[in-house]
Amino acid sequence: MILDALKADVLNANLATVRHGLVKATFGNASGIDRDSGLIAIKPSGVPYEEMTPEHMVICDLDGRPRDNRFRPSSDLDTHLALYRAFDGIGAVIHTHSTFATIMAQAQHPIIPLGTTHADYFHGEIPVTRNLTPQEIETRYVAATGDVIVEAFAGRDPLEVPAALVAGHGPFVWGETLEMAVLNAMILEEVAKMAWHALTIAPAVGPISKSLLDRHYSRKHGANATYGQN
Amino acid sequence: MILDALKADVLNANLATVRHGLVKATFGNASGIDRDSGLIAIKPSGVPYEEMTPEHMVICDLDGRPRDNRFRPSSDLDTHLALYRAFDGIGAVIHTHSTFATIMAQAQHPIIPLGTTHADYFHGEIPVTRNLTPQEIETRYVAATGDVIVEAFAGRDPLEVPAALVAGHGPFVWGETLEMAVLNAMILEEVAKMAWHALTIAPAVGPISKSLLDRHYSRKHGANATYGQN
Amino acid sequence: MILDALKADVLNANLATVRHGLVKATFGNASGIDRDSGLIAIKPSGVPYEEMTPEHMVICDLDGRPRDNRFRPSSDLDTHLALYRAFDGIGAVIHTHSTFATIMAQAQHPIIPLGTTHADYFHGEIPVTRNLTPQEIETRYVAATGDVIVEAFAGRDPLEVPAALVAGHGPFVWGETLEMAVLNAMILEEVAKMAWHALTIAPAVGPISKSLLDRHYSRKHGANATYGQN
Amino acid sequence: MILDALKADVLNANLATVRHGLVKATFGNASGIDRDSGLIAIKPSGVPYEEMTPEHMVICDLDGRPRDNRFRPSSDLDTHLALYRAFDGIGAVIHTHSTFATIMAQAQHPIIPLGTTHADYFHGEIPVTRNLTPQEIETRYVAATGDVIVEAFAGRDPLEVPAALVAGHGPFVWGETLEMAVLNAMILEEVAKMAWHALTIAPAVGPISKSLLDRHYSRKHGANATYGQN
Repeated sequence: MILDALKADVLNANLATVRHGLVKATFGNASGIDRDSGLIAIKPSGVPYEEMTPEHMVICDLDGRPRDNRFRPSSDLDTHLALYRAFDGIGAVIHTHSTFATIMAQAQHPIIPLGTTHADYFHGEIPVTRNLTPQEIETRYVAATGDVIVEAFAGRDPLEVPAALVAGHGPFVWGETLEMAVLNAMILEEVAKMAWHALTIAPAVGPISKSLLDRHYSRKHGANATYGQN
Repeated sequence: MILDALKADVLNANLATVRHGLVKATFGNASGIDRDSGLIAIKPSGVPYEEMTPEHMVICDLDGRPRDNRFRPSSDLDTHLALYRAFDGIGAVIHTHSTFATIMAQAQHPIIPLGTTHADYFHGEIPVTRNLTPQEIETRYVAATGDVIVEAFAGRDPLEVPAALVAGHGPFVWGETLEMAVLNAMILEEVAKMAWHALTIAPAVGPISKSLLDRHYSRKHGANATYGQN
Repeated sequence: MILDALKADVLNANLATVRHGLVKATFGNASGIDRDSGLIAIKPSGVPYEEMTPEHMVICDLDGRPRDNRFRPSSDLDTHLALYRAFDGIGAVIHTHSTFATIMAQAQHPIIPLGTTHADYFHGEIPVTRNLTPQEIETRYVAATGDVIVEAFAGRDPLEVPAALVAGHGPFVWGETLEMAVLNAMILEEVAKMAWHALTIAPAVGPISKSLLDRHYSRKHGANATYGQN
Repeated sequence: MILDALKADVLNANLATVRHGLVKATFGNASGIDRDSGLIAIKPSGVPYEEMTPEHMVICDLDGRPRDNRFRPSSDLDTHLALYRAFDGIGAVIHTHSTFATIMAQAQHPIIPLGTTHADYFHGEIPVTRNLTPQEIETRYVAATGDVIVEAFAGRDPLEVPAALVAGHGPFVWGETLEMAVLNAMILEEVAKMAWHALTIAPAVGPISKSLLDRHYSRKHGANATYGQN
C-alpha cells in the first residue's frame, strides 16, 4: 500500500523533471524513500519516460537489495543509497542533467549565493565535489559518487543546501519530500543560469551578505516563515 | 467603484507579467495607486497566478494600513509604499525576477544606454542600488529596499528612468499607469539582455551620445513626440 | 496596379520580419521600390502589425514626397530613401531590431566572416557605421543614418554585403527584391548570433580565408552558381 | 528493394535532423551506404525538406557515379564519399549547421571531454580540422573537406569519436547506422553547447580524467555495456 503510493510518487517526480525541461532522453533519475520500512523506489534503467508506469519503479532496501522486481534499477542507484544512508533527514533524491547546473559542474565552479532567489532555497554556496580518483572510478564508481557528495557536506546540514554539483558530471538534488526535491531541482537550474551569466559579465562580484542570505532563507523556512497566506 | 476598477487593473498587470515571461512561480508583484483616495491595490502573498481573481487584490493606504481585506499583501508591500510616497508622479509599481534584469542586479552592474531601444524608454543609465546594511536588513528589510531605490534617484526624475536594479535581488519598475509599468518592465528585460551581450563581447564600449539619447527619448515622450499616427 | 502589388509585397515583407522573430512590438520596417516609376511603398508609423493591411502602406517618391496617403510613413523613411538613392541596384530595404544583430551594433563590433554560412550570403565583413555627430543628430537624424551607411560602403558593392550595423542602433538590410531582403535579414541574425558566440570563446580567431569566402559566395551567386536543381 | 529501404531511411534521417533543430532552411544533408553493394543514398541539392520524398534521394557508388537519378545530389557529396572510403566501419554520414557545434567550428576550438555526457558518446576530444589551402579550395573543395577530416583521425578509430568540426564551416557526424548518426549529431550539439558555456566561465578547466572517460564510454559501448534493461 505504502509502496504503491511511493512508486506513484516516484514516477510523478521522474515525469516532472522531464516536464520542467531538466532531463533529456533517458538521462536523469528520481527516487524516494519510506523511512519507516527503509525501502526505496527508484526509476528503472533505460526505460523511455513515455512508457514508464508505477510498476516500472524498482524497490530495494538501503543496501540495494532488490525486492521482487522485474526491472533493473537506474545505474545511479548506489549514489542515491549513499545519500539516503548519510543524510537521514532527506526523503527524495533527484539526478538531472539540467543545462546550467551541468555546465557549472563541468566548469567545476561552485554556485555562490548572488541573489535572493538563491537565498530563498539554498542557505549558502552549492558545492562542487572533488574529482574521483582513478581507483574509485574503477572499483566503485557509482557509490563513490555518493561519497564525494557526502564529503562536500562535512559539518553542514544537507537540508539547508539541498544540492551538489558532481565535478565533470552534473547535479544531484534532494529534499524532505519528492515534491520539494523537484522544486529544488528547478530552482537550482534557475540559480545556476543566473550565476553563470552574472559571473561571466562580473567575474569579481561577491556573494550577497550573510544578513541578506539569512533574511531570505528564513522567510520561507523554519518557525518564523512569513511567506504566503498561512 | 474606483477600487473595483483598480483591483481589476492590478490583477491584469500581474497576469501580464506572467504572460510576457517576466515572472516565474509566485515571484513578482504589481500594484497600482488611486492618487485621489491615496489607496493602493497590490497582489496577495503566495497565491498562484492561475487562481487569482480581482477579489484577491489587497487594498491599503500609503502607510500600509489594510482596508477590510481577507488576504495578506505581497511580502514586498513596504517597498511599493516607499516608492509611492517618494515618487509622486508614479501610478504603478512592478517587481519581477525577469532573467537578464535580475542577472544585471546580481552582477551589480548598471545598465548604461547602449542603444536606441534603451533611449526610447529610459532617458539615461538604469542604476543599481547600494547594498543594504545588516542593520537595515534585520530591522526593516522591505521598506529599506524602497529607500535605497529612492536614494539612487536623488536629483533625478524617476519617470525619465522608470526602473532600478536592487543589488543582489532584481528589478523594480514603475510608470504613470499600470499599462506603462508593464511595458517598461518588458523593455527593461530586452534592454538588459542586449546590454549583457554587448558588454560581454565589448566590455569597453561606452554609452551612446547624449544627443542620440535625447533624440530617441523625445521622439516618444513629451510635447514634441513624433512617433505614431497622432 | 503595380503600386497595389508593391503594397501587398511590402506588407508581406513586414509581416515576414515579425513571423521570423526579427521584430518586436512596432519596431522595424520594410519598404520596396518600383524603379520604373521611382515610387516607394513603406510601412506606416506605429500601426500594430496585426491590424496592418496593404492600404496602410505609404507611397512616396525618392525625395519623400507623399502620394495621396492617409497614413504617416515609418519614422525611418529618410534612411530608406538615402539607401535607394545611393544604391541603385537595390529593390528593398528592411530595418529590424533582431537580437544579435542589434547586440553587435550596440557593441559597435563588425561581423567578420567566420564561417561558410556568412560567405554564402555576405561576401565580406558586415560593417558598423561611424557614430553620428551631435549636429547630424539634431538637424537631420534619420537621413544622416542613411548617409553613414552609404559612407561605410564607399568603394564596395552594396549587393555583395547587403547589410550594415548602425552603431548604437541596429541593422539595416537590403536586397534586389523584398524576398531577398527578408532572407538576408534572417541570415544576418543567424550569422550575428554565431559570430557573437565564436568571438566570445575565441576572441583572437580570424576570418575565413579569401579563397573559402569566394568559393561559398560564388556557389550561390553569379553566373557560375552551382547550388540547387537548376 | 534494399535501395528502396535505404532511400526511406536516408529521407527519415534528413527529416530527423530538421525535427531536432539541427538544420535550418536547406542546409545540412544525410546519407547512408549499403556496404554490400557499395551504393550510397544522399539528399538532393536544394530541395525543400517539406517536399522531399524517398524518390528525391540520389543514388551513387563510392566514386560518385550516379545511378539513374532525376536529381542532383547534395553539393557536399564528395565529402561524404571521402568519409565512406576512409572509414570502412561507418554506415551513415550527416552534415548539419547545428548552432553550438558550428560556433565551435567557427571558433576553431576542439571540444575536449568536460563531462560524462560527452564520455557516454565520444571517447575523447572532438577535433577541429586544419584549414584548407587556397589550392585545395579552388581545385577540389568538397573532396578536400573530407580529406582534412580523415587527416584529423590519423591513428584514431573514427567510431570512437564519431564527429569532426570542419574549421570555419560546421560539423560532420557519422555512425554505424543512420539512427546512430542522428543520435550522435544531437548529442554533439548538446555537448558543444555545454562546452561553450563551461569554457566561457572557466577557460582553464581541463578534461575529465581518462578513468572517468573510459568508465562512461564503456558503460554504453562494447561487450561490457551495462546500461538499460538488456
